[in-house]
Amino acid sequence: MSIQKINIPSKLSLFSDYFNPRVAGELNGQQVKLVKFQGEFIWHSHANEDELFYVLKGKFDMHFRDQIITLEENEFLIVPRGVEHKPVASEEVAVLLFEPAGTINTGEMSHELTRPTLENI
Amino acid sequence: MSIQKINIPSKLSLFSDYFNPRVAGELNGQQVKLVKFQGEFIWHSHANEDELFYVLKGKFDMHFRDQIITLEENEFLIVPRGVEHKPVASEEVAVLLFEPAGTINTGEMSHELTRPTLENI
Repeated sequence: MSIQKINIPSKLSLFSDYFNPRVAGELNGQQVKLVKFQGEFIWHSHANEDELFYVLKGKFDMHFRDQIITLEENEFLIVPRGVEHKPVASEEVAVLLFEPAGTINTGEMSHELTRPTLENI
Repeated sequence: MSIQKINIPSKLSLFSDYFNPRVAGELNGQQVKLVKFQGEFIWHSHANEDELFYVLKGKFDMHFRDQIITLEENEFLIVPRGVEHKPVASEEVAVLLFEPAGTINTGEMSHELTRPTLENI
């Protein structure tokens, strides 16, 4: 049996680049991803995927067209499909994402920040 | 727009009973559940659902038929469908679960610990 636990701080120590999610687990067609970022991402939405953001360390602001929600450690937010959003972090933040396998980080937008394939970690 | 963040420690403070998961979020047909427990659960498996256990506070032992994995804070484990498992905690632990909506806590087993319907929190 190849069941192994994943230690999140230890996985986070393996990379330092921003806006480049790693895949840390997969179940039921969904993936658990880990990402670090600082600065401003782009406005985008996902036509067919809801997306969960859970703050592991630090904090960031999730911008919506009609509000901004500050997400701090041990808080999560679900962005429903079709809803435009833009993550912005004034300092480095580490986030766990839970979303369908194959979800593209920039959604319907093609951009230099788009990461069509992700590394497993 | 009804998007709201979820603060996990604050949700955990709302209940104290064991082996009775609450639903804290739903996306893509999956649910985020919060559960506290201490003591020994029952051996069971889920025919069609993989199940993620993420330790928020405390620690517990996940028993498999061929090994025991101790899960501590900030660690997670994915139990693939069909694999028998039994969570055991010597002290209280708080765990986040990710799994398909409708997953029954005791899987294929009917037991006094079975919780066929779960409260939202």
